[in-house]
Amino acid sequence: MTNETPIMLDSLWRGAHVATMKNGHYSVIENAAIGVLDGRIVWIGDASNLPTYQTQKEHDLGGGWITPGLIDCHTHLVFGGNRAGEFEQRLNGVSYQDIAKQGGGIASSVKATRDASEAELIASASRRLKSLMADGVTTIEIKSGYGLSLDGELKMLCVATELENQFPVTVKRTCLAAHAMPPEFDDKDAYIDFLCDTVLPKVAALGMADAVDAFCEGIAFSTEQVERYFQTAKSLGLPVKIHAEQLSSLGGTRMAASFKALSADHIEFIEEEDVKAMAESGTVAVLLPGAFFTLKETQRPPIALLRQYGVPMAIATDANPGTSPALSLRLMMNMSCTLFGLTPEEALAGATIHAAKALGMGDTHGSLEVGKTADFVCWDVESPGELSYWLGGNLVKHRVYHGEEHQGEKA
Amino acid sequence: MTNETPIMLDSLWRGAHVATMKNGHYSVIENAAIGVLDGRIVWIGDASNLPTYQTQKEHDLGGGWITPGLIDCHTHLVFGGNRAGEFEQRLNGVSYQDIAKQGGGIASSVKATRDASEAELIASASRRLKSLMADGVTTIEIKSGYGLSLDGELKMLCVATELENQFPVTVKRTCLAAHAMPPEFDDKDAYIDFLCDTVLPKVAALGMADAVDAFCEGIAFSTEQVERYFQTAKSLGLPVKIHAEQLSSLGGTRMAASFKALSADHIEFIEEEDVKAMAESGTVAVLLPGAFFTLKETQRPPIALLRQYGVPMAIATDANPGTSPALSLRLMMNMSCTLFGLTPEEALAGATIHAAKALGMGDTHGSLEVGKTADFVCWDVESPGELSYWLGGNLVKHRVYHGEEHQGEKA
Ligand SMILES: [Zn+2]
Ligand SMILES: [Zn+2]
Repeated sequence: MTNETPIMLDSLWRGAHVATMKNGHYSVIENAAIGVLDGRIVWIGDASNLPTYQTQKEHDLGGGWITPGLIDCHTHLVFGGNRAGEFEQRLNGVSYQDIAKQGGGIASSVKATRDASEAELIASASRRLKSLMADGVTTIEIKSGYGLSLDGELKMLCVATELENQFPVTVKRTCLAAHAMPPEFDDKDAYIDFLCDTVLPKVAALGMADAVDAFCEGIAFSTEQVERYFQTAKSLGLPVKIHAEQLSSLGGTRMAASFKALSADHIEFIEEEDVKAMAESGTVAVLLPGAFFTLKETQRPPIALLRQYGVPMAIATDANPGTSPALSLRLMMNMSCTLFGLTPEEALAGATIHAAKALGMGDTHGSLEVGKTADFVCWDVESPGELSYWLGGNLVKHRVYHGEEHQGEKA
Repeated sequence: MTNETPIMLDSLWRGAHVATMKNGHYSVIENAAIGVLDGRIVWIGDASNLPTYQTQKEHDLGGGWITPGLIDCHTHLVFGGNRAGEFEQRLNGVSYQDIAKQGGGIASSVKATRDASEAELIASASRRLKSLMADGVTTIEIKSGYGLSLDGELKMLCVATELENQFPVTVKRTCLAAHAMPPEFDDKDAYIDFLCDTVLPKVAALGMADAVDAFCEGIAFSTEQVERYFQTAKSLGLPVKIHAEQLSSLGGTRMAASFKALSADHIEFIEEEDVKAMAESGTVAVLLPGAFFTLKETQRPPIALLRQYGVPMAIATDANPGTSPALSLRLMMNMSCTLFGLTPEEALAGATIHAAKALGMGDTHGSLEVGKTADFVCWDVESPGELSYWLGGNLVKHRVYHGEEHQGEKA
């Protein structure tokens, strides 16, 4: 080995086991080493096989397990106010109807988000983002959808962009203008026209979104309306995602699959034909156990069918003020096991490699392999299954983003 | 006010609202001030009514809400190993039966706890304790019950004592020797004899426990066996608590009430007569939603009856390696609302003043009043209901124990 040319590294990480999550499995390397250059992994394997190297920094992690940084692929992290007051009212016996009458529900988040300045939205979302990051998240998707006007939606997408500037985290921005009806419109088709004619083209022209999303449900938009909106997204070159089949079966998932949607999310009510369509289109199933738990739903997504057809299952927080005020992706992993029967390995794949696929970044993120981005977490655990086992707790020992350890905001 | 004698303080805390939890209600003081001397509250009220004072330190909290420090009144925090492996096996389809055959279940925790040194038990429990403390806990109850021998039980109680020495937290130690059958015994009555003749007298003589607990259930000990064990505890001057009516109705709660038990815990299957007995004996109902969630139980404790008879309801993590690997008491507050229908105010009372009562320390802890211990938390929230609303997240701004702010271990 003496005359070998050394590999050049910015940093070398060793002293822990790795669950690489390659191909969606733990794919364990015991006593591993990870070599990083320019924010990417250039060497990973058994530490005893390390070739000759030169490095700027060498880190001995002193035990624990490394996994890919967690990827929260479905959040509504940016919003004004919160709905703890409504949560409390409902538990004190106030009906949904009375809460709606007093301007509650999603309408109250739309109002509070419209009323908030960009700085206020950044400040409140930052607090939530810090909790998620402290729990191991290195990539997060953030949706608009509480603006429901051109300015309101752009403001939310700007805030999402700014969060990436301020924190060591990768942000994917999704335009969810078809989330609910704004108070200015009575007619759903007229609102969809407005989104297709004005909002989506502007968002695309400004490069403010990485994908487009819609809420397809009786209480939101019909499959036909969402289809029209997706046609516009497609013509603008934007990939699509969908909130579908959460409360009923409208065929939104199958329609979205025909657009090769990145993901179909919630999907408690999908049937075998929908699962087949997802398998054929390469659409990821995004499971949101926090909303299932908070809404006390009883219909579980058809995990056995998704497994049977090989549809990748991602797990996300759905962090939002109404139906899933969730600030821990690891807790969602636990809930996906306990409520949906996923294995801890599936749950971890769901928060890493499959979540990366749901964001169209499976080639660069979500598993620890040579050439991929060096986003990883070293956890204070004795097995990767512990990440799904514990309810709460602080398990992060080191959080490494683009090859560098960060605790809070960017310096 | 000029000639008034100033009150003397070690520290003054202001700049936040307070939910004092006096009498189990928020009992809010807006823009409050708290004066501390010798670790106790000597003044609390509206900051604008503060009398003249002299203080060593003055803290402006800059917003947020103060509550009493959280009290986790039912934990099995000390144990060897963990059961993440079993959790993972079960989700991979291995039956309970096969897990038991390979020495799993509680037997594996007993073996791992017996095999561990005191130092190892302190190290592993410390990691869990730090998570609970970071989430706002200032008092914790810790049960023995994985030793099931004289030495094993004493070792666990020593570890609990040592944790209080090492961390800024109050520890209450409960002897749960009647938790399960040790492998050395075949006959349950013979094991109860051993506990009454040998273990409880020694634990009492050494002053190693603040209370005595038993698991009264078909899979553990009968009501008659627990009664005999409680008679010994009573004769030794130790108050009792009980795990009862979790999976079936055996009458354990009513029997425990006849001993004026501090608390009856789990109690999913209690009936109106049990609730009446608890109300008469002043026994607190300790609700454990983490176990309910993890075991996918369907029978909820009878909240309406407990309210009707005025039985105080406490909430705890039940932190244990098998049925509730919970490291956040705040998450249990959320679950008590979502799963059991408690109000956020009841949940907070359950993690403060009612938890203090369940530990026999309601006179000194659990609410913020003059004369009580100055254990409190300042939270980064806009209303106390947020403590139950968010699923996960880091909401603690300041954690004050005996009047002093502590982040981690004692200096
Ligand atoms: Zn959503
Ligand atoms: Zn217990």
